[in-house]
Amino acid sequence: MAPDSTLITGIGELVTNGPGAADRGGFAAITDAALVISGGKVAWTGPAARAPAADSALDAAGRAVLPGFVDSHAHLVFAGERSAEFAARMAGRPYTAGGILATVRATRSASDGALRANLRRLAAEMLAAGTTTLECKSGYGLTVADEQRGLALAAEVTPEVTYLGAHVVPPEFAGDRAGYVDLVRGPMLAACAPLSRWIDVFCERGAFSADEAAAVLAAGRAAGLGARVHANQLGPGPGVRVAAEAGAASADHCTYLTDADVDTLASAPMVATLLPGAEFATRHPYPDARRLLDAGAAVALATDCNPGSSFTSSMPFCIALAVRDMRMTTQEAVWAATAGGARALRRTDIGHLGAGARADLIMLDAPSHTYLAYRPGVPLVAAVWQGGRLVSGRL
Amino acid sequence: MAPDSTLITGIGELVTNGPGAADRGGFAAITDAALVISGGKVAWTGPAARAPAADSALDAAGRAVLPGFVDSHAHLVFAGERSAEFAARMAGRPYTAGGILATVRATRSASDGALRANLRRLAAEMLAAGTTTLECKSGYGLTVADEQRGLALAAEVTPEVTYLGAHVVPPEFAGDRAGYVDLVRGPMLAACAPLSRWIDVFCERGAFSADEAAAVLAAGRAAGLGARVHANQLGPGPGVRVAAEAGAASADHCTYLTDADVDTLASAPMVATLLPGAEFATRHPYPDARRLLDAGAAVALATDCNPGSSFTSSMPFCIALAVRDMRMTTQEAVWAATAGGARALRRTDIGHLGAGARADLIMLDAPSHTYLAYRPGVPLVAAVWQGGRLVSGRL
Repeated sequence: MAPDSTLITGIGELVTNGPGAADRGGFAAITDAALVISGGKVAWTGPAARAPAADSALDAAGRAVLPGFVDSHAHLVFAGERSAEFAARMAGRPYTAGGILATVRATRSASDGALRANLRRLAAEMLAAGTTTLECKSGYGLTVADEQRGLALAAEVTPEVTYLGAHVVPPEFAGDRAGYVDLVRGPMLAACAPLSRWIDVFCERGAFSADEAAAVLAAGRAAGLGARVHANQLGPGPGVRVAAEAGAASADHCTYLTDADVDTLASAPMVATLLPGAEFATRHPYPDARRLLDAGAAVALATDCNPGSSFTSSMPFCIALAVRDMRMTTQEAVWAATAGGARALRRTDIGHLGAGARADLIMLDAPSHTYLAYRPGVPLVAAVWQGGRLVSGRL
Repeated sequence: MAPDSTLITGIGELVTNGPGAADRGGFAAITDAALVISGGKVAWTGPAARAPAADSALDAAGRAVLPGFVDSHAHLVFAGERSAEFAARMAGRPYTAGGILATVRATRSASDGALRANLRRLAAEMLAAGTTTLECKSGYGLTVADEQRGLALAAEVTPEVTYLGAHVVPPEFAGDRAGYVDLVRGPMLAACAPLSRWIDVFCERGAFSADEAAAVLAAGRAAGLGARVHANQLGPGPGVRVAAEAGAASADHCTYLTDADVDTLASAPMVATLLPGAEFATRHPYPDARRLLDAGAAVALATDCNPGSSFTSSMPFCIALAVRDMRMTTQEAVWAATAGGARALRRTDIGHLGAGARADLIMLDAPSHTYLAYRPGVPLVAAVWQGGRLVSGRL
């Protein structure tokens, strides 16, 4: 063991997502377990009785240890809030203050410092709730300079930075959609690609068409970015097909799917990322995770954290909804929130706790992963390690 | 002002439930407000610009302040857990390990110390999440000694102690229901009444009939206890009627109601206490709060925290479900979780922040009460005062 090794023993349930973590649905756990962290990575896992020695030791006292959550879909670079829009929607009252464009206006006029403070507050909130990897999109700037600014800020909190110039057509291009698409896949992409790992498009009636989305994704791929798509959120549409054809890592939302879409998701090397916080906050029906899982698709869960359609940052809340309202088992939901998210980001170093994995892990104030759904709304994450370092917690 | 007075100023939204707090649906709030605590009570509320001086001052920096939550329905004296039963139910698998009776067995065999530790852990968890008053029932003992023990423990954490000998018929009386009812309303009541403020009966098919429930409640009233009823949880039944006839303060659950039940709830001096955590954890349909409110009934929200059918302790979670799935407005839900709970406990000193109220209050990491539903799953309660004392928080 390296000189900085730490043994966590007395683990009631250790969710490893084992050697098969890359497989679809490969939840795995061992009881009465131990884990050794060394050099920022997981060095060993196994039965507590066979644990090797380490420089320091910590007794989990029967609590559960899981991989940190991987939140593969979040929009954290924004200003303003839309609680009045939310309250009006819940009360069944019309509200026409502009949705995404209201956030675009507020974001454009905000200072770097204000955007950074909001972003860091949300990222810290996520970390304390167990999210050790988050993806963060631009998409509330929609000018070359504002998208660049958003991506540079996002890169301060995560390597999983996604360029979403194709979020909506901004008002100044209302009469020139083609001009905006050309900007997004031309000069804006050139300015943003060096700051990003991913490119994303909102392919939906009211946002971007299949042809527009395909053009943007193709340009992004040519610039070295991986593809992701907001697909089939508000109604049936071409999003899933466009995602598959672009070789996307993930089609996100997947609320309204045809049988052909389900077949596509089951056969493509792509994840269906479900975002139940959005259905919670909009009263759309929840996506049918059972149908996707039974067809053999890989499913991830993420928060979609944004000020309009899903302002939760809580992966445990998404897990509880997935179990209650999307017919996922507790194992499937936890796999989706950890290994599923890693797969949606094409990462093999996170989302599991096999030897060699990054030591991103959480300890619950509970004996098993089941409690994340069994005790909804209760802040159960007692401690968080990121890269082997204890970054949050009460131990 | 008394020498210990504290001024909280800069309050973005102060939910007072104003002078009309005792009225049905009397949510009230003021913006840009201040509040003075003195002698453990609220001494003054009003616009920040007109706040009087005090011995110490605290700037809320635009955050919201609300009355502490009043959780008027919880079962916290128990041992064991039932996560496997929960997971099986969610996965659609049969599970026959005995439900409430499994908890009765575990509770009877637990030490006082183990029961006390579990109870205190849950009460502390509730307090940190903003619950400044909780009701706590017995009902997992079901012998004279075990019910007495449960009530004495409950009294260590709250004055709102409820004798629930009539939870289910225990196995040793399986062949003698009448004998158990006689015990509950006779010697067990005599032993338990001095430890309790309330008596409760689970009036439901599979638990106690209308006649049995009425007999138990009448004996409890004669012994000086206030009445409450578990009513209409699992199907239509006589629970609401029995509650009204017994002069109960609250009929709890109210999931399956006839029009006559709704009329009864709207006209009796009784609260309909809704427990959406139970529907979340059992996949029963949520109670129709809108129907009750539109009929003029007073509605409370509570957690039903227990290890079987609702293991959440979070009032914010219940508020979010009430807004999303029960068609309550955010104002109605917050009133129900504060003033509604107070009314269900027939308390006028809590659930509002009028001058003279007990200084039980919470500060959110958010500018308004709306965020409790707008940001579901996020631990927004930043600080908690109980009787004027800061008992939990990050300020």
